[in-house]
Amino acid sequence: RASRPYVRDGARVHFCEFIDAMGRMDLVIAIGGDGTIIHSAKHAVKHNLPVLGINVGRLGFLAQLESNELHQLSRLVQGRYTVRKHMMIEAKIQTDSEQMVCVALNDIAITKGDLSRIIDVDVTCNGKLVSEYHADGVIFSTPVGSTAYAMSAGGPVVDPSIASIGMTPICPHSLFSRTVLFSPEKELVVRAKYINNHNDLYLSADGERPIKIRRDSQIVIRKSDLAARLIDFGDRDFYEILNLKILGRGQRNEIETA
Amino acid sequence: RASRPYVRDGARVHFCEFIDAMGRMDLVIAIGGDGTIIHSAKHAVKHNLPVLGINVGRLGFLAQLESNELHQLSRLVQGRYTVRKHMMIEAKIQTDSEQMVCVALNDIAITKGDLSRIIDVDVTCNGKLVSEYHADGVIFSTPVGSTAYAMSAGGPVVDPSIASIGMTPICPHSLFSRTVLFSPEKELVVRAKYINNHNDLYLSADGERPIKIRRDSQIVIRKSDLAARLIDFGDRDFYEILNLKILGRGQRNEIETA
Amino acid sequence: RASRPYVRDGARVHFCEFIDAMGRMDLVIAIGGDGTIIHSAKHAVKHNLPVLGINVGRLGFLAQLESNELHQLSRLVQGRYTVRKHMMIEAKIQTDSEQMVCVALNDIAITKGDLSRIIDVDVTCNGKLVSEYHADGVIFSTPVGSTAYAMSAGGPVVDPSIASIGMTPICPHSLFSRTVLFSPEKELVVRAKYINNHNDLYLSADGERPIKIRRDSQIVIRKSDLAARLIDFGDRDFYEILNLKILGRGQRNEIETA
Amino acid sequence: RASRPYVRDGARVHFCEFIDAMGRMDLVIAIGGDGTIIHSAKHAVKHNLPVLGINVGRLGFLAQLESNELHQLSRLVQGRYTVRKHMMIEAKIQTDSEQMVCVALNDIAITKGDLSRIIDVDVTCNGKLVSEYHADGVIFSTPVGSTAYAMSAGGPVVDPSIASIGMTPICPHSLFSRTVLFSPEKELVVRAKYINNHNDLYLSADGERPIKIRRDSQIVIRKSDLAARLIDFGDRDFYEILNLKILGRGQRNEIETA
Repeated sequence: RASRPYVRDGARVHFCEFIDAMGRMDLVIAIGGDGTIIHSAKHAVKHNLPVLGINVGRLGFLAQLESNELHQLSRLVQGRYTVRKHMMIEAKIQTDSEQMVCVALNDIAITKGDLSRIIDVDVTCNGKLVSEYHADGVIFSTPVGSTAYAMSAGGPVVDPSIASIGMTPICPHSLFSRTVLFSPEKELVVRAKYINNHNDLYLSADGERPIKIRRDSQIVIRKSDLAARLIDFGDRDFYEILNLKILGRGQRNEIETA
Repeated sequence: RASRPYVRDGARVHFCEFIDAMGRMDLVIAIGGDGTIIHSAKHAVKHNLPVLGINVGRLGFLAQLESNELHQLSRLVQGRYTVRKHMMIEAKIQTDSEQMVCVALNDIAITKGDLSRIIDVDVTCNGKLVSEYHADGVIFSTPVGSTAYAMSAGGPVVDPSIASIGMTPICPHSLFSRTVLFSPEKELVVRAKYINNHNDLYLSADGERPIKIRRDSQIVIRKSDLAARLIDFGDRDFYEILNLKILGRGQRNEIETA
Repeated sequence: RASRPYVRDGARVHFCEFIDAMGRMDLVIAIGGDGTIIHSAKHAVKHNLPVLGINVGRLGFLAQLESNELHQLSRLVQGRYTVRKHMMIEAKIQTDSEQMVCVALNDIAITKGDLSRIIDVDVTCNGKLVSEYHADGVIFSTPVGSTAYAMSAGGPVVDPSIASIGMTPICPHSLFSRTVLFSPEKELVVRAKYINNHNDLYLSADGERPIKIRRDSQIVIRKSDLAARLIDFGDRDFYEILNLKILGRGQRNEIETA
Repeated sequence: RASRPYVRDGARVHFCEFIDAMGRMDLVIAIGGDGTIIHSAKHAVKHNLPVLGINVGRLGFLAQLESNELHQLSRLVQGRYTVRKHMMIEAKIQTDSEQMVCVALNDIAITKGDLSRIIDVDVTCNGKLVSEYHADGVIFSTPVGSTAYAMSAGGPVVDPSIASIGMTPICPHSLFSRTVLFSPEKELVVRAKYINNHNDLYLSADGERPIKIRRDSQIVIRKSDLAARLIDFGDRDFYEILNLKILGRGQRNEIETA
């Protein structure tokens, strides 16, 4: 599958492998919803490339342009944009013999498999027990991820500029099910408890295909050294989108009747 | 595995298959937690047998005796007890060609598989759309089940004598995630939506092994014609246990320091 | 303010005191929002009169007609309607020397005054402690009231036909803040705790002007012997309105752009 | 009430006005609960004094010593402590003719009076509408305040080192009642809406006596330039106390029976 040149109006378009292409770019344009932009940004970060999101479909938090605003693409050439960094989190999955690392811009979710009834884990922060969870799962989220899965599980909205790691349980067997926002300097360790626990754990970064975790693993959650870089045209404000998508809706007495 | 007589003090104990045994009993004594009692009660209901729960381990809502109160078993012989009926719900899973029915004393949970990101379903009540759910799942619960999985998902506590069917979403993509309590006369139908939905559904009754549901199925949830019959000694009150287990705990300012 | 006859097209309109008027009516037509209908229904109940609600403004749960459907009023003359009973709750406020009773179709709220920081009460059910609340208040609600103040405080939606008394704390100092749904046969008693508590209690029925409660009072909450009678044309279904007002809104990903 | 010398073992104790005393101190020792420590810290900040909290009674987040650890007071003389700064927020209440400022270490609550049914306000962030609230009130909280009133209203736990301003509605008439965490650089403006709104607003800083707010006022909420300074012995960790007070409790299945 070699790169194939495609010519129109003197410009050339090269088709090549995504990964190869990254190495030759100045920036990435991601067209889709927040999921697509997140996926692109995670790959782009390895090459230190900024990403511009163009929205298709539903209103998202991360896109800078709608599909009818493409004339604004000239800003890229003119350099009329800023690049905003967004913190990412990573999960290091460690057993005695091996380790692997997953990075997320939205969230790391540790959940039960479909045949398991529950996860049964301890979470420690800098070596001290913070909480035990008997639950369907636990979500660790970035500020950007606060309006994604963590919100469905009951979490708060976090301004994208507030560096923090959110921890939100899914259906806990507990009287307290609120989100805890940790300082981004903290290192959190999740360990499955052995007693009475024959259930598997699954870990998914940004809603990607879940990885099965061995029960003797420990999962270390912390701020990633990498930061996603999103191009910002300054026209869209997080709080405006928040109002449009979330806060300004749901006024339950507002439906006017004829 | 034929029935084996076992003699002590003139009494005989027969070991035989659980299902066969049911046919010869006057009542069932279930020793364990609420899960065990529920499991026994669901089998006993087919033979119209009442069940006495004896608690082992953690405080439950359904047991009538603790392990140190076994002398009270004589009440059974003396007839000093009442039998309390508890409503059950059923899920009828229908495709064009076949149907099957699951019965639950706690809850029917319709959830995503571990590799699926979400369920995308419509719920109708007597033919009219009540809600769409993009969610990890939906729990339909009896009053007895209100303190089980539905509670973990955010639901209210329901007095066991209030006939009703609770509907509680799990991690919905929605601003409104509250439980809706339906009248037990209502028939609810859950259908997967096809558009953009390649995800599987799983259905689990009372936390038992999930059944994979074909996407063209419809699931009809309604009050079962059967009612579980639990023996009641009248000494334990639902609200007392509620206070001990739930309401009387969690007073967050109550820890005294030395 | 004697009754003044007002003639148009042969019909006569009498203006007189609301209370006097009630004694001469066959039914009451309440024009307004749910608040107006509730207010009318509570007065009408004393004269055993049914109430028809005509909605003005926002969508409500209780009105049967919109302002552009007035031609349907002929149904009243034709007798083409049913009367639906809705349970009410009452609060009996007792001190050593006196007692008074308030009745509510939506809710009885027991709250702090504006200069008090908190209420500090015990709630008992049939003589046994159910919960202590250090909170801004506690709401006791009917099924009809489940979509009113109790919903704002986090409570579930309850089908109007499910007889029950909901108890929902407002901002409790507790890890558990869920609604408890009591059987309508239960009698709940709320008592202020004396220790460290110099704060006043206020009681408001259906959002009406709060009554100051002496700290040595006990407040008995139970199902009222009276039931509100609302005229039903059968065209509007609770779950349809629920979908329009609440469940069908708030799909947080649904705003289309461009 | 002149200062009165009191001599024991050669030391002298001076009794004088709290405000006067502040001017002569090196540091403040506050003995009581979190409320007392907060009150002291707010006064101390005007004189740039650090505060050491000694706990009496219930476990708190802010005290460094228990009453049986007073021997550790020698650390103060030895200089074996650090001073930790905690962000405060302020509310500037502005009318055409006047303005006043309130400062809070926990929270600024804007609520209805006891005879008013609701507040009806707009909240803007840097000039743009974020949310309208029809509610019993809105709480603006610091990270330290996240475990106080905001928690009762449903808010998340925020690590004290994460600079942010939390906004949590109290009983909103809205489908969405989550906390929004704003960046501490943001300026939030709360304004009462005039239409259909004859209700008063009250503002209370840290639970202190509420101030009545004129309806034509605007309330500007922002990070204070002042920061409370609390003495830290390094022995107590926020997450340990969190586990003891909140997360480690409320495991609803944990009560063992005999």
